[in-house]
Amino acid sequence: MSQVRNVKIIGTGKYLPKRKVYAHELDELIGVKEGWVEQKSGVGIRSFVENETASVMAAHAATEAMKTAGIHKEEIDCIVSVSGTMEQPIPCNAALVQKQLGLGESSIPCFDINSTCLSFVTGFDTISYLIHSGRYTNVLLVSSEIASVGLNWKAKENAILFGDGAAAAILAKTPDNEPSKVLAGHMETFSEGAHYTEIRGGGTKVHPNNSSADETDFLFDMNGKSIFKLSSRKLGAFMEKLLAASNCTIDEIDLVVPHQASGMAMRILRKKLGIAEAKFMNIIHNHGNTIASSIPMALHEAIVQNKIERGNKIMLLGTSAGLSIGGVVFEY
Amino acid sequence: MSQVRNVKIIGTGKYLPKRKVYAHELDELIGVKEGWVEQKSGVGIRSFVENETASVMAAHAATEAMKTAGIHKEEIDCIVSVSGTMEQPIPCNAALVQKQLGLGESSIPCFDINSTCLSFVTGFDTISYLIHSGRYTNVLLVSSEIASVGLNWKAKENAILFGDGAAAAILAKTPDNEPSKVLAGHMETFSEGAHYTEIRGGGTKVHPNNSSADETDFLFDMNGKSIFKLSSRKLGAFMEKLLAASNCTIDEIDLVVPHQASGMAMRILRKKLGIAEAKFMNIIHNHGNTIASSIPMALHEAIVQNKIERGNKIMLLGTSAGLSIGGVVFEY
Repeated sequence: MSQVRNVKIIGTGKYLPKRKVYAHELDELIGVKEGWVEQKSGVGIRSFVENETASVMAAHAATEAMKTAGIHKEEIDCIVSVSGTMEQPIPCNAALVQKQLGLGESSIPCFDINSTCLSFVTGFDTISYLIHSGRYTNVLLVSSEIASVGLNWKAKENAILFGDGAAAAILAKTPDNEPSKVLAGHMETFSEGAHYTEIRGGGTKVHPNNSSADETDFLFDMNGKSIFKLSSRKLGAFMEKLLAASNCTIDEIDLVVPHQASGMAMRILRKKLGIAEAKFMNIIHNHGNTIASSIPMALHEAIVQNKIERGNKIMLLGTSAGLSIGGVVFEY
Repeated sequence: MSQVRNVKIIGTGKYLPKRKVYAHELDELIGVKEGWVEQKSGVGIRSFVENETASVMAAHAATEAMKTAGIHKEEIDCIVSVSGTMEQPIPCNAALVQKQLGLGESSIPCFDINSTCLSFVTGFDTISYLIHSGRYTNVLLVSSEIASVGLNWKAKENAILFGDGAAAAILAKTPDNEPSKVLAGHMETFSEGAHYTEIRGGGTKVHPNNSSADETDFLFDMNGKSIFKLSSRKLGAFMEKLLAASNCTIDEIDLVVPHQASGMAMRILRKKLGIAEAKFMNIIHNHGNTIASSIPMALHEAIVQNKIERGNKIMLLGTSAGLSIGGVVFEY
């Protein structure tokens, strides 16, 4: 059955915190020889928040996306936060974004969709059905992530990958006679790897007030080797299904916008897909892995750098904690 | 534009923790005169977890829902966690539920939808578009909440309302010649009230390791009076829109299944709607407010108690942190 949805991305935006953190600063912080951080991570510069909250960053990215789209904030009729982290446990992120945008009395519905690093992909895939059917007219999808507060600097290989930041997109129904459409989405979750990537503490299982928890329980933990093994084993079959549902071949894709997991992960992924560097969006060097913001931020950069034009076939693709693999193919 | 979706709830289930906590025990715990807790909250018995995790409870509720639906777990092709709390910050709840169900190698996609107490309503409303369009065949929606770990017993009026528990529903496409359908959904968020209901700490704004935070930052806080004022002001216009979209009157609704917020909140809501007690599902006395599990649990009870039959018009309705008001009208 065709999954085609007449949905168009009418605007995108991003926000990076002002504080830039260079690889050589981290070399010093974690006590490794100069050059190690950049060589290991592929990240030269990442941004870390000082006073910015996730909703403040989200509002900046959303405002840019609305400006590009040429719409006023009052024309948004649904706000979906698509982040892997939360600003506070209650209420949901999207409500805090609505407030930050000065829309506190607007009545615009607000909720969150979360599949960790794939949240934007899942949100885009899911919400496009509601736009296609006419339920919503202009939907704001926004990812805003503060990774820096939850990093374990003793787990060097993991901590050096991440950056903070937000990215937003406005989705709308495609006007008649325009090519924009979602061709297909596909997601697979293998929870045999549920604990390969995790923050164990901070939810109901290990509450922040749990006196037997220690600091590292509340910090990010990742078993890179296990993730690599499991995702490598599953990627081929996943891609076949995504491409079949999209009714196209990998060669017909004009640009792959992958999750900016790490320099190495992206090199391996690109080779597995067998595609040229020019068709693989890579912004990791000056952004780092910004969790769920990573894919919409790379998409935004592809648009502002004129790497894609209307009618191009774009693939969003990534892995996330879960372990999940997910992707969407769309004509921009 | 009609919002009708050919979607049927083919099975429901619930799970309550074994440990029962009676109102008189809480009278003693918080040092009030006997009878105060039950009189104030309308809750005689709530269940609190001992060793159960949220995913363990979710798996019990899901298993019952699949049994009622007459499907095997391998026939599920999407798992959506619709909870207001998380078991751990990473990965998402749904992946942990998949693992607990023994589906770790299944590839079934897993993600979370969160609008606090309205998560089930938002998930039902959103995902029904994907089922109607043929994207998914059998979707497991499951709410599983552990409120007890985050209660502030010094804020007596709030803490006495809550209970733990899980509830699940399986959604599928309606077979030809059957009446089941979603008529409409509607949601409004007024973030002017974003901080009326909150847990301030535990996310990226006040991280669990934040040394300047105190224990109460990680506990539930609610300003009941402000919520009441704001939601009372907004309810009338909200209901008009939900009923208009559903193309029916309140008198045509066979059963309203409200969020089980508190005994008093439900009494006031029922009177505002002007409907008889028999048409208003109330399970608060022996469940308490189980956050997002509350609505699907009350729906499950309405089904097993034979209060609704196929073809009946049902309204799910509630308020949540945000502040949001949300509802769905469907023919069961």
